[in-house]
Amino acid sequence: MPLPLNPAMMATDISPVPEAARWVAGVTFPADQPLINVSQAAPVAAPPAPLREAMAQALLEETASHLYGPDLGLPALREALAEQASAQYGGQVSPAQVAITSGCNQAFAAAIATLAGPGDEVLLPTPWYFNHKMWLDMSSIRAVPLPTDDALLPRLDVAGKLITPRTRAIALVCPNNPAGVEYSATLIAGFRDLARKHGLALVIDETYRDFHSSEGAPHDLLTDPDWEDTVIRLYSFSKAYRLTGHRVGAMMSSPARLAEVEKFIDSVTICPSQVGQRGALWGIRNLGDWLAGERQEILVRRRAIEEGFPRLAAKGWRLKGCGAYFAYVEHPFALPSDALAREMVEAAGVLCLPGTMFEPRGEPSGARHLRIAYANIDRAGIATLFDRLESLGLPR
Amino acid sequence: MPLPLNPAMMATDISPVPEAARWVAGVTFPADQPLINVSQAAPVAAPPAPLREAMAQALLEETASHLYGPDLGLPALREALAEQASAQYGGQVSPAQVAITSGCNQAFAAAIATLAGPGDEVLLPTPWYFNHKMWLDMSSIRAVPLPTDDALLPRLDVAGKLITPRTRAIALVCPNNPAGVEYSATLIAGFRDLARKHGLALVIDETYRDFHSSEGAPHDLLTDPDWEDTVIRLYSFSKAYRLTGHRVGAMMSSPARLAEVEKFIDSVTICPSQVGQRGALWGIRNLGDWLAGERQEILVRRRAIEEGFPRLAAKGWRLKGCGAYFAYVEHPFALPSDALAREMVEAAGVLCLPGTMFEPRGEPSGARHLRIAYANIDRAGIATLFDRLESLGLPR
Repeated sequence: MPLPLNPAMMATDISPVPEAARWVAGVTFPADQPLINVSQAAPVAAPPAPLREAMAQALLEETASHLYGPDLGLPALREALAEQASAQYGGQVSPAQVAITSGCNQAFAAAIATLAGPGDEVLLPTPWYFNHKMWLDMSSIRAVPLPTDDALLPRLDVAGKLITPRTRAIALVCPNNPAGVEYSATLIAGFRDLARKHGLALVIDETYRDFHSSEGAPHDLLTDPDWEDTVIRLYSFSKAYRLTGHRVGAMMSSPARLAEVEKFIDSVTICPSQVGQRGALWGIRNLGDWLAGERQEILVRRRAIEEGFPRLAAKGWRLKGCGAYFAYVEHPFALPSDALAREMVEAAGVLCLPGTMFEPRGEPSGARHLRIAYANIDRAGIATLFDRLESLGLPR
Repeated sequence: MPLPLNPAMMATDISPVPEAARWVAGVTFPADQPLINVSQAAPVAAPPAPLREAMAQALLEETASHLYGPDLGLPALREALAEQASAQYGGQVSPAQVAITSGCNQAFAAAIATLAGPGDEVLLPTPWYFNHKMWLDMSSIRAVPLPTDDALLPRLDVAGKLITPRTRAIALVCPNNPAGVEYSATLIAGFRDLARKHGLALVIDETYRDFHSSEGAPHDLLTDPDWEDTVIRLYSFSKAYRLTGHRVGAMMSSPARLAEVEKFIDSVTICPSQVGQRGALWGIRNLGDWLAGERQEILVRRRAIEEGFPRLAAKGWRLKGCGAYFAYVEHPFALPSDALAREMVEAAGVLCLPGTMFEPRGEPSGARHLRIAYANIDRAGIATLFDRLESLGLPR
């Protein structure tokens, strides 16, 4: 008798990052052409030594760092993040409006679980962040593709026409993964107004906000005293303080919704990592200047992508979006992107993710795109990457 | 316009442990009657110093302890757990059949997500573990109560009659939370046979297996070379090595199912805590003897409950089940258990969870029961607890 398997889970795409890791498993790269891995948006270096020391000290000296903590996170961390967000956005966020989660993906999953059930719909601009799409698929919620324009920006009029009685939320990622684009404060406020008008939630995932190219607040959502009636803001400590392996993210929403989030967290992970939360709190308190430096370096890399791109453009490549950790590019080859990305592993020693992993199945644009997560390669590495892409001899 | 809220989430019960914590928040207890907290099944002491040191060292010296790791866990930990399970159960478990999860609740959630979708059914013996019930509720999967007999054991004939075309799994917790009872190997094998006959999964949550009263394997499921076609085994490192705050659990199943589990984990938490996994691995390698001592102490406490109970029995209490971390008791009072549990906070300085949190709504037995999680109180503490229960002057 066949094993029971949930059809919604079977229909969910496989996880892109582990899948891409399998493409390079067992491949040996020549010493003069080591692998350039631009597949995952994650730091590859350890956090600064004083942060590591603070976390180690907690493990050695603080019993509570090994025990269950509150489902919605350490009160001190909720308070510090509320304070930081209030200051950064010129708004009013209280600790009761903050939940700490086991990474930002869990914040999204929990937010959606409180918003929508089977058969409901959520609008995602395309290209989308694959884990958002996957969570909706496995939850039997319809991910409604919201096509973007040639600058990869979602349009309010297009979104308005996709809203149905089953729509529960619009989810934006800003700065965008995978497209790298930054949405203007005006566009974001427009989506808030659209969501509010239709009684939907506006979920805004700001995992990469610390690397935004503008100084100051990237939007004014939190200056609205009634923000919690519509906005659900998601954040990650992973990129800011290099804490990916500790799984610490956050959600800002109404206390009423967070009471529902508590049920989700209680049933899935009970609480976020205690030592991870202590690391995040230490980071907020001590690493502001360090993070500002990290941001400058990411912006240097972004300029290296933009300034170096013309020589690829001469070969038929197009830079569609660039920002945060990502360049979203159009390639000039006859191969579809999923075949191309696999081919590039041996042909160029480059691992990146194909547009097919970020765009609806059967959508022809996915086959033309690649996502390059450039945050882990410096100016010299970007030059080497471009050398390899420039000399790729594949059919056009 | 009202906020969108998922009706399935709204209908899910609130989380018992945080709820009970709110009952004592702000209450001051007299110095001669400090709170006895027997509400949560969790260690309250730190792990042994050498384990804490090993984890601290990883944070200081090992970059990978701060970075994303594989979704399904560290290969070395999967291997060590496969080896341990093979040895303990006299069976054959390969590393490819093991996934590491962010705690055992996540293992259950992920297992169910691969098995069942909205409208499907899962059988849970009652009293049930509340997080299992909550996860099914919020997933729009029907939790079908499987009533147990007076010894709190589920019966095969009763279960057989509850199976419908929508049934996808039977989930057992053994040793049982909340009932404390241990199911015999024969009973467990009977459930495996029943599940196999109907093409269902048998999910067996062995969070408390390290505190089982029998030496040796508590069941022979894994000696069946085809176990993975039916059995999904769940485990937790939280209790064994006092790692609750690090969120490390595990699932054993077929590699085909774990490929689906990978999608779930990728979308919810990406990977388990890297430092938590290193702690669990260090525990498996070094804490076997220490854990054996921990088990002996838990068994001492269990005997203290059993030997001390007659004086409560004389006042009308009944000990329904006792084992692992739990005593499940019937109280003699006229109050329903949910009101009684709140009353006991001030009247006796005792915090425990009412049977209403573990039994179907409207089921009269839930109102008569209390769960006492005695693992954190020693013989003397148990005597004090019984003094307080004995002298509770409430209407009968």
